[in-house]
Amino acid sequence: MQPRFEKGTLCGMKQCPNSARNETGIATTIGILKQRFGELCQTGEAIREQHGHTTTGIENQPPDAVVFAQSTQDVAEIVRVAAEHKVPIVPFGTGTSLEGHVNAPLGGISVDVTKMDNVLDVHTDDLDAVVQPGVTRKALNAQLRDTGLFFPIDPGADASLGGMAATGASGTNAVRYGTMRESVLSMEVVLPSGEIIRTGTRARKSSAGYDLNHLMIGSEGTLGLITELTVKLHGVPEAMSSARCSFPSVEAACDAVIATIQMGVPVARIELLDALSVRAINAYSKLSLPETPLLLLEFHGSTASVAEQAELFGEIAEDTSGNNFEWSTSPEERTRLWQARHDAYWAQLRLRPGAMSLATDVCVPISNLAKAVTRAQSKAAQLDLMCPILGHVGDGNFHCTLLFDGESREEKKRSEAFMEWLPEMAIELEGTISGEHGIGQGKIDKLAKQAGAATDLMRTIKRAVDPDNIMNPGKIVRLAP
Amino acid sequence: MQPRFEKGTLCGMKQCPNSARNETGIATTIGILKQRFGELCQTGEAIREQHGHTTTGIENQPPDAVVFAQSTQDVAEIVRVAAEHKVPIVPFGTGTSLEGHVNAPLGGISVDVTKMDNVLDVHTDDLDAVVQPGVTRKALNAQLRDTGLFFPIDPGADASLGGMAATGASGTNAVRYGTMRESVLSMEVVLPSGEIIRTGTRARKSSAGYDLNHLMIGSEGTLGLITELTVKLHGVPEAMSSARCSFPSVEAACDAVIATIQMGVPVARIELLDALSVRAINAYSKLSLPETPLLLLEFHGSTASVAEQAELFGEIAEDTSGNNFEWSTSPEERTRLWQARHDAYWAQLRLRPGAMSLATDVCVPISNLAKAVTRAQSKAAQLDLMCPILGHVGDGNFHCTLLFDGESREEKKRSEAFMEWLPEMAIELEGTISGEHGIGQGKIDKLAKQAGAATDLMRTIKRAVDPDNIMNPGKIVRLAP
Repeated sequence: MQPRFEKGTLCGMKQCPNSARNETGIATTIGILKQRFGELCQTGEAIREQHGHTTTGIENQPPDAVVFAQSTQDVAEIVRVAAEHKVPIVPFGTGTSLEGHVNAPLGGISVDVTKMDNVLDVHTDDLDAVVQPGVTRKALNAQLRDTGLFFPIDPGADASLGGMAATGASGTNAVRYGTMRESVLSMEVVLPSGEIIRTGTRARKSSAGYDLNHLMIGSEGTLGLITELTVKLHGVPEAMSSARCSFPSVEAACDAVIATIQMGVPVARIELLDALSVRAINAYSKLSLPETPLLLLEFHGSTASVAEQAELFGEIAEDTSGNNFEWSTSPEERTRLWQARHDAYWAQLRLRPGAMSLATDVCVPISNLAKAVTRAQSKAAQLDLMCPILGHVGDGNFHCTLLFDGESREEKKRSEAFMEWLPEMAIELEGTISGEHGIGQGKIDKLAKQAGAATDLMRTIKRAVDPDNIMNPGKIVRLAP
Repeated sequence: MQPRFEKGTLCGMKQCPNSARNETGIATTIGILKQRFGELCQTGEAIREQHGHTTTGIENQPPDAVVFAQSTQDVAEIVRVAAEHKVPIVPFGTGTSLEGHVNAPLGGISVDVTKMDNVLDVHTDDLDAVVQPGVTRKALNAQLRDTGLFFPIDPGADASLGGMAATGASGTNAVRYGTMRESVLSMEVVLPSGEIIRTGTRARKSSAGYDLNHLMIGSEGTLGLITELTVKLHGVPEAMSSARCSFPSVEAACDAVIATIQMGVPVARIELLDALSVRAINAYSKLSLPETPLLLLEFHGSTASVAEQAELFGEIAEDTSGNNFEWSTSPEERTRLWQARHDAYWAQLRLRPGAMSLATDVCVPISNLAKAVTRAQSKAAQLDLMCPILGHVGDGNFHCTLLFDGESREEKKRSEAFMEWLPEMAIELEGTISGEHGIGQGKIDKLAKQAGAATDLMRTIKRAVDPDNIMNPGKIVRLAP
């Protein structure tokens, strides 16, 4: 989808020495899996490349084989064989993750769960659904169409629910409905030993022992492989309204966001586009929005409440120097108001045709958001980089899309400098180096900086749960110095 | 506060053999701590007994010394000394936990954090507060009075925030505001090695590495000792309304709860009292409510919205055979409507003056709630036990209060049989053995039943993080068979 580097060390990734590969173990494991899984065990170059594709600047490190699992038992069997021969296992859903999560730096087996795509149960009274990990968020919502319920988490891509849980994904409406961390009640997980566990129950809350559910969410396949999920659903709101408002500065827009959250307006989405992104969208969608920071909002609730919420935001916007405030409840009008957001990614790419793009995210306390965004803009300007910014600003989360000439070694270097700098700035502002993309390969060194002494605890846990380091090795933490 | 057994094996607790106590290590540790902490290190019998007090039927197992920590550095120092001599550490906040969490079955040092009671920072723009672990929820709310913000989690007792995080506490309004698991952004924790870590940042969401924050929440002091917390705050709602409605049966009341949740009414509290609890409250507070299941509700929001919510619930109640529906927004009327809930615990105790009481909780998917409550009522009747029930039913969580003659060995036996049976019934109905009380000593065997193979993973984590088993040993999981 996105262009990527052919080779490189962007984001601090280093080539793995071939000596670290367990060649004998890999060959034996593939032999056993071919016999057991037949055509479902593939070793062709194209399919291996596709399963190492990282949608980022991180180079492709394909697995040695791809096995298409069809059941939990299949996964457990694959893991047991790999465990016996100490061979890496890399889980694969839709491959839309953004930090090199599906790469196989030590080779090994990619376990593709796309054939595990059944919605196993929908409990309408309990507002939950039990799904296999290969079900995508759109497929789940399609199956829920007649129930009056929906699954809200929307990271943009039509990602698999297993992958979304593994990376702790979220998206535009996390401010109202939470992230995957708040949306998964329980999972079935195959541990590195091949043992199958459940991380919770279908009860809405529990104080029964260690929170294995949250330990597994966001663990990026490094502690186990998710084979089933019970996710929370929500009632489709009776009504929706959308609103749009321009602001003279990022600070003014952020002041409006803070006031909205503080007043307890249960906003469903609140997105910021910086002036450069608005310029992009004006050109792409033939709009004529003021080329200043823009907030786009969506409200969910009863007919009366969505009107009340939109009007309340209008008052807040007026108090914080907002202008061109518009809102509507009609579907066509809502689409028109949100056009700028829907097209944002493609519009951003058009700012510099032919350029490579690199997406990254950070998240800071909302009081530091204006500071963080303006610092990012200044840094990009200082490095002479084109870097439109948009954010799910109700949570303080924002995305930078670097657009650069992939042929220019010097420009790549400047892009790397920005990628090095951004997470450190987020740490300095009491934030996190990733709000929703995860660590993968790309941010391992930065995680160590953010978590400090806690990195050792992460390493301790990884070593205890996966002593042979077969589960998605080379992601989140480095075990050897 | 509550009466308790003098000795006993209720809930499967067994006396620890004295041989397991590390007498030399304990004596050495106390010697060092006395020298270092002087009067803040206490060994008197009364204070030790008070720190082993479990507010339950589980016998008192006092620590050998109590040290009043005044800073994170104090805690780290105590832990380092104890670690060196392999001596148990038991954290202590307000001692209001309900499953023997503060007991010291192997002796050791109780670390009392009540002197660490400062609110360190309130970030009004970010809706969070940084507090020491000894700050109680009421003390925090008192300090927030002028900010327009509040901390919602309300487990009944005025518990310390450190203790509430350690046990994964929640309470009546979790259905709207979540539990401690959703309310703690980050913590400072002293690990068994004495090392100090942070489990997160002040950012609202993060996908940066293993979720150590959730691993520590609900770990009951068995993985580390909480020395600071950053908790989420909420804006004080503009308006509140309360409602009350009687139902002919538990099933009808639960149908109303399900419909309310399904329609997305953002109810702040929804409490069920069974007929026996209503009888208790009628007698205690001179009310004349129909002695049938009762729902009590509270709504938070704008003036218009709380009226809309209450009226909407009224319509739902009518559809589900509710009667005597009343609602109000005036504070006096709201207090009157909720009187039944405020007095419930004391009213329940009066059902059988002089009896001992034993409180326990389970939580099931809401579709199984009516079944679970009526089964519990039948079981109590079958065992000839008095057992009023009330619940935070928006989450499927309910509490049984057993009232029994502490002098009667035979009645104690029947009470034990009920306590054995209740969690297993919850497991059978896809629920959890504890919604908010935790595991402590009381439910260790039941946790193993609920978590199955996952218990081994909990044990693996405990062993890796605390290899000498000094952190609150004998809680959550048993390490030796």
